[in-house]
Amino acid sequence: MDYYKESLKLHEEHQGKLSVVSKVPLKNKDDLSIAYTPGVAEPCREINRDPDLVYKYTTKGNTVAVISDGSAVLGLGNIGAKAAIPVMEGKAVLFKAFADIDAIPICLETQDTEEIIQIVKNIAPTLGGINLEDISAPRCFEIERRLQALLDIPVFHDDQHGTAIVVSAAVINALKLTGKKFSELKVVMNGAGAAGVAIVKMLQALGTEDIVICDTKGIIAKTSPKLTASKKELAELTNHENLTGTLADAVKGRDLFIGVSAPKMLTVEMVRSMANDPIIFAMANPEPEIMPELAREGGARIIGTGRSDFPNQINNVLAFPGIFKGALSVRAERITEEMKVAAAYAIAGIIPDSELAEAYIIPSAFHPGVADAVAKAAGEAWTNQFK
Amino acid sequence: MDYYKESLKLHEEHQGKLSVVSKVPLKNKDDLSIAYTPGVAEPCREINRDPDLVYKYTTKGNTVAVISDGSAVLGLGNIGAKAAIPVMEGKAVLFKAFADIDAIPICLETQDTEEIIQIVKNIAPTLGGINLEDISAPRCFEIERRLQALLDIPVFHDDQHGTAIVVSAAVINALKLTGKKFSELKVVMNGAGAAGVAIVKMLQALGTEDIVICDTKGIIAKTSPKLTASKKELAELTNHENLTGTLADAVKGRDLFIGVSAPKMLTVEMVRSMANDPIIFAMANPEPEIMPELAREGGARIIGTGRSDFPNQINNVLAFPGIFKGALSVRAERITEEMKVAAAYAIAGIIPDSELAEAYIIPSAFHPGVADAVAKAAGEAWTNQFK
Repeated sequence: MDYYKESLKLHEEHQGKLSVVSKVPLKNKDDLSIAYTPGVAEPCREINRDPDLVYKYTTKGNTVAVISDGSAVLGLGNIGAKAAIPVMEGKAVLFKAFADIDAIPICLETQDTEEIIQIVKNIAPTLGGINLEDISAPRCFEIERRLQALLDIPVFHDDQHGTAIVVSAAVINALKLTGKKFSELKVVMNGAGAAGVAIVKMLQALGTEDIVICDTKGIIAKTSPKLTASKKELAELTNHENLTGTLADAVKGRDLFIGVSAPKMLTVEMVRSMANDPIIFAMANPEPEIMPELAREGGARIIGTGRSDFPNQINNVLAFPGIFKGALSVRAERITEEMKVAAAYAIAGIIPDSELAEAYIIPSAFHPGVADAVAKAAGEAWTNQFK
Repeated sequence: MDYYKESLKLHEEHQGKLSVVSKVPLKNKDDLSIAYTPGVAEPCREINRDPDLVYKYTTKGNTVAVISDGSAVLGLGNIGAKAAIPVMEGKAVLFKAFADIDAIPICLETQDTEEIIQIVKNIAPTLGGINLEDISAPRCFEIERRLQALLDIPVFHDDQHGTAIVVSAAVINALKLTGKKFSELKVVMNGAGAAGVAIVKMLQALGTEDIVICDTKGIIAKTSPKLTASKKELAELTNHENLTGTLADAVKGRDLFIGVSAPKMLTVEMVRSMANDPIIFAMANPEPEIMPELAREGGARIIGTGRSDFPNQINNVLAFPGIFKGALSVRAERITEEMKVAAAYAIAGIIPDSELAEAYIIPSAFHPGVADAVAKAAGEAWTNQFK
């Protein structure tokens, strides 16, 4: 199927993908007087008396904004606010389909960090959560961190944390098959963009100690020249042996390769140089760091990509609907590392050990119950920590 | 029926009034690949190539934001963003019910004019129109004017223009019954808030020459001390004879009283002092400037209020859904005075001359075809002017 052609057709036919509908009847004057004036004054007065009642009388508690400035959309780059809308509407469709969350796309005309923070902070009253999307690094880090400090609702940059959760779930199940432990795992990650820091922190929260990261200039070490702030953070968190060199050097003897970079970065020879039972998660889109057949040729035991036409698709849709559903259900004020770890184990746990196999370490996006399992785990993690 | 009690019950039962749903299927991997990645990249690329295609491939063209800062909500005053949400959700429900427009409530945490302008300007990419709501005067004037200058989509402060349109429709039909002409009409308006300037401008666009306005200090004249900017504008537009005095002075010999003020401002004696066949539109809510039975006692021939339990309800819902529907249908860049006048005549024209009566000069909100008639008239007015 030509997805591009079909997608254009679909978007034109429906003039976009979302609709806002009423949950209440509006057929006569009484309906009007209850849903609108004069009756509506009463919930207004109640919320004015006790602001917490906004969760009882409005849609806030089930509403998430999908917010982007269009600066890093899919693999398309900085295409701006208007061209980003189809992606944000799509994300809202997924929120509805997988978690029954009401999501609204907000595409911002500005790419100024301070303006974005000020805008999102001020439109938060109607929102139960904020999903930041396709905002370029390093601005995405500061925007998320500062908004979360300003707001008492979850602020979640899916490109970072959604990816980290699903990668972690895949690693959890891959280790079950290979019999390796997080504490012994030697990881190499290629790519130090938005997802990098989040993946590293999650793998560490899961017990991983030995991680080395490469960018286009090779291995990132504390001694590397001219590091950006986020790469400095990565250098501090990883590469405790102060390795230097190229990706080929970094890959040698490693158990797990994580690619969040670009096509064709990993060669058959590099896979051959890894430890026994190599695990390869090559998530560059649409073309992975190494095609699965080449990874297999190099001896890879478990292979995952971002694509739906290969086994083991590392797909954020496994995480974000359930994470938000869980957070909203317990009114979590933010998404904690503990909630993300619980979500990763919940996704991994969807596949019973008896069904686990090299080509089936991660459930399909349409596997029944994923979002509910993630929601339950994430909600409980918050409750255990704070309630 | 106790509307307040019923309203609380309704809002709690449904946890608010709105839901965001998908217009496209999402049942399997193909659906996902068409509505989201990888297919969605294609409409993104197309819009990036030609930004105008955002109307073809996204919901922008049918989406209106209902935006408030909670500074002047109903008669409740400055109750803030959260407490304003039930009203804005209600407005969105009306947009859907009466015009099939997808409307999203945005309640702003800030009441700073500059911040509001900057925020709304920057969230406009996903929007086909902006309905400003319950923002206090005089900030509402500047916010609307400057936003409209910045944006190529309609920015419409309903408290001003919606009211003006429906009042105008009521006046059009009242004049048919009394046989008076706009050019001869002597008008007194009590209240110089958000709706004042808009009503004056519309009545003038309809041909009215003699209008006098009172605020709590009495008749507004060019010589009145300490006028705010918007009252100065009103003073320039009205009271060409430079009358001074109280409301009682202003009312004498007038054909039409328009109240956008407070309960009990107009007395039976004042109505008695008006010209023959007095027309009284007393729109203070919930209690009008004069109760209909008292106005009748004073000799009023035609009486309208803002209430649904008396005849001739002057209700904005007759105007805003159709105005936006018409504007969106021709992609009007703003709502012009001509569109508003056309809308007023369309609303008035819903009632055939044969049915017109003192107690039936304005159709019910639920009269079939109102929004479509308004949309057609407003859209044609734009097209005639600019296309």
